[in-house]
Amino acid sequence: MTVTPYLDRVESELKELADMVDADQPGWTRQAMTETDLAGRQWALKRMREVGLDAHIDEAGNVIGVLKGRRGGRQLMTGSHTDTVEAGGRFDGMIGVVGALEAVRLLKETGQQLDHDLVVVDFFNEEPNRFGLSCVGSRAMTGTLNPQAFGVTDETGTSFAQSLQIAGIEAEAMHRSRWDFSRTDAFVELHIEQGPRLEEMGTEIGMVTSITGVSRFRALFTGRRDHAGTTGMEARVDAGCAAAGTVLAVERIAEQGNSELPGSKGTSGGVRFTPEAINVVTELAEIRGEFRSPQGSWLREAEEQLSSAAAQEAARRGVDVEVAWLPTQDPRPMNDQVVAHCRDAVDQLGLSRAELFSGAEHDAAVIADHVPTAMLFVPSHKGRSHCPEEWTDLGDIQKGIAALTESLIRLDRVGS
Amino acid sequence: MTVTPYLDRVESELKELADMVDADQPGWTRQAMTETDLAGRQWALKRMREVGLDAHIDEAGNVIGVLKGRRGGRQLMTGSHTDTVEAGGRFDGMIGVVGALEAVRLLKETGQQLDHDLVVVDFFNEEPNRFGLSCVGSRAMTGTLNPQAFGVTDETGTSFAQSLQIAGIEAEAMHRSRWDFSRTDAFVELHIEQGPRLEEMGTEIGMVTSITGVSRFRALFTGRRDHAGTTGMEARVDAGCAAAGTVLAVERIAEQGNSELPGSKGTSGGVRFTPEAINVVTELAEIRGEFRSPQGSWLREAEEQLSSAAAQEAARRGVDVEVAWLPTQDPRPMNDQVVAHCRDAVDQLGLSRAELFSGAEHDAAVIADHVPTAMLFVPSHKGRSHCPEEWTDLGDIQKGIAALTESLIRLDRVGS
Repeated sequence: MTVTPYLDRVESELKELADMVDADQPGWTRQAMTETDLAGRQWALKRMREVGLDAHIDEAGNVIGVLKGRRGGRQLMTGSHTDTVEAGGRFDGMIGVVGALEAVRLLKETGQQLDHDLVVVDFFNEEPNRFGLSCVGSRAMTGTLNPQAFGVTDETGTSFAQSLQIAGIEAEAMHRSRWDFSRTDAFVELHIEQGPRLEEMGTEIGMVTSITGVSRFRALFTGRRDHAGTTGMEARVDAGCAAAGTVLAVERIAEQGNSELPGSKGTSGGVRFTPEAINVVTELAEIRGEFRSPQGSWLREAEEQLSSAAAQEAARRGVDVEVAWLPTQDPRPMNDQVVAHCRDAVDQLGLSRAELFSGAEHDAAVIADHVPTAMLFVPSHKGRSHCPEEWTDLGDIQKGIAALTESLIRLDRVGS
Repeated sequence: MTVTPYLDRVESELKELADMVDADQPGWTRQAMTETDLAGRQWALKRMREVGLDAHIDEAGNVIGVLKGRRGGRQLMTGSHTDTVEAGGRFDGMIGVVGALEAVRLLKETGQQLDHDLVVVDFFNEEPNRFGLSCVGSRAMTGTLNPQAFGVTDETGTSFAQSLQIAGIEAEAMHRSRWDFSRTDAFVELHIEQGPRLEEMGTEIGMVTSITGVSRFRALFTGRRDHAGTTGMEARVDAGCAAAGTVLAVERIAEQGNSELPGSKGTSGGVRFTPEAINVVTELAEIRGEFRSPQGSWLREAEEQLSSAAAQEAARRGVDVEVAWLPTQDPRPMNDQVVAHCRDAVDQLGLSRAELFSGAEHDAAVIADHVPTAMLFVPSHKGRSHCPEEWTDLGDIQKGIAALTESLIRLDRVGS
């Protein structure tokens, strides 16, 4: 027996989430630690209870619902996140949560009680927050949230710990959300591809083989504030020019890396000059950037090259520079056996599939260190994501939810 | 008879202005069209009346006070501005206003009534405002304020005309502030040098020969917002990298220009990437920048070179770019005869002097197109300006005020 997700229910739930966004932002914005994010997770809690899960929000803001299994004790886990980037889309993260809710409804409606407990999670703060941290909820559940992160401050001097408090989360209590993964046999996350390959190939389901490694940095250049009209070119200590040279170094290092190892990427995503005055030499310039690669060793090379390029760009202008790297996240391979069961499920449904590397980060990468993990992708129109144009056809989402549900059923039979 | 300015009066007036600043900003901030700027100009109005001037604020926000001359009809003019850049200093502009007040007191106390009417002006909004416009008050008085400027909007969508309204100024009424300069025989502005040369030479007074030409631009790069993890290097349309390349082009063009024609400068003073998100490819990047030079022809060359460099940096990344240039302000030579009279005054006072080129803009540059004009500079410690560290010794200000007063007395004798 195969299951067929109901498009109207999925569509209406996606729409409810899409309506719960910051009206002052373009696109769809529900950033972690905001009113809308709180509303989104309360919505997830309510929905989980409506579909019959025993649900709560844990000390780290994760919304967790459990569907009791016939035998119980052992667990399968699925889920994703409902937070977005600023001016993001309506699908990234959401379809993994809405898809899990639909999977639970389908299991109940078709009378297929699993042996395993099925744990559905809406992970807190998956997208990088303004403190540079991502996958906060899944890190807390796996006990890998670095306590030093709590002290990091944003441009207004507010610390991450203070921002969490605004969202009703106590930094000191987050460790209590740690999950006992020794009882969890598998984790499967349904997500949009966020890249163009499935659409280009005309393929319905992407079987993720590995999730990208990421290395993030913040470079702060300190020059000297001077009158732009009276300070000669030779007398300037221009932090802005040093930063501009470093932005180009990120691009150059990544382009060369990509030519040798396709999939390598480098981005300067947040650049800020201070003061912003047309007739003042820039005193402070900040770059927040990252490298990504399927290969951990290249990330370490790129880190070295960029630190050295930033130092050179700064030194030739007399500028001081400080480059701080977050701990490197190595690429995470998915679990062969879990992937094999998902593949069988996709084949049984008669869907086309292709193996894909995930250039995007996911909670699945954090969970994969602790539980055998797989990810299922559905196509993204033109590969656009993290923007209002992000789009996946409902029919494609339906197929993805069917694949997720069937995969859980298969994993239940073989698991533990 | 020579005059000796009273340090205590000058010091206390500079202190009163220094106390009238935005408490949320570092240094001394009294930016045009803010509460503190309004307070500063009201203070100037009150002070002008106290020293016996017939004073009012005109339709363009200029504070204008007139000391009736013995004959009247013909005028001499002096003054400067009380607005500052963000996080600026306590002297730039202010000493030309406080110096004029002290000159009026000295003339009265020594019983030296001029034949000319003496017009003292605190010009509105000399520093570049957030719409890219500087010398707003002097432009209005000379009828050279471009009406198109009123429609320019800032990042919040507020227009220059709306911002003026907040400051109690009606854009449509500003033309009424136009001054009849046919009656004005000379304009002299006292100002800090904002550069290091007088201090380095141990010279007391700078005789300005010419005021820099300035060419200002705004370059807007439009790329495509994409997920930084899933969008390959070859598929990106990164507005930030194109902007970074253009910031370096500004520096390169100016360094080369400066090696051929010393005094040439280029600055990217306001750079902004949108969105500021570490895992999103930059969609929009803006540079506000400028070139300065003692030579107008070089400014035109620099404009061409930069427009072409920006186009290249954009094209190689598939980015769209729009470069908008404000009208070029050509370098303004000072009037030989007025400068000669000022020189005689400085010599009579026994002060050392040197000829200087002004790399900074001044209201004097705008007035110089309409009235024979000169500028007197006093030393700036280490040449620092447009920053909290800006400093000029009171003793140096005293010498500058004496030179200004003596220059006005000499010009009164010969004028008209």
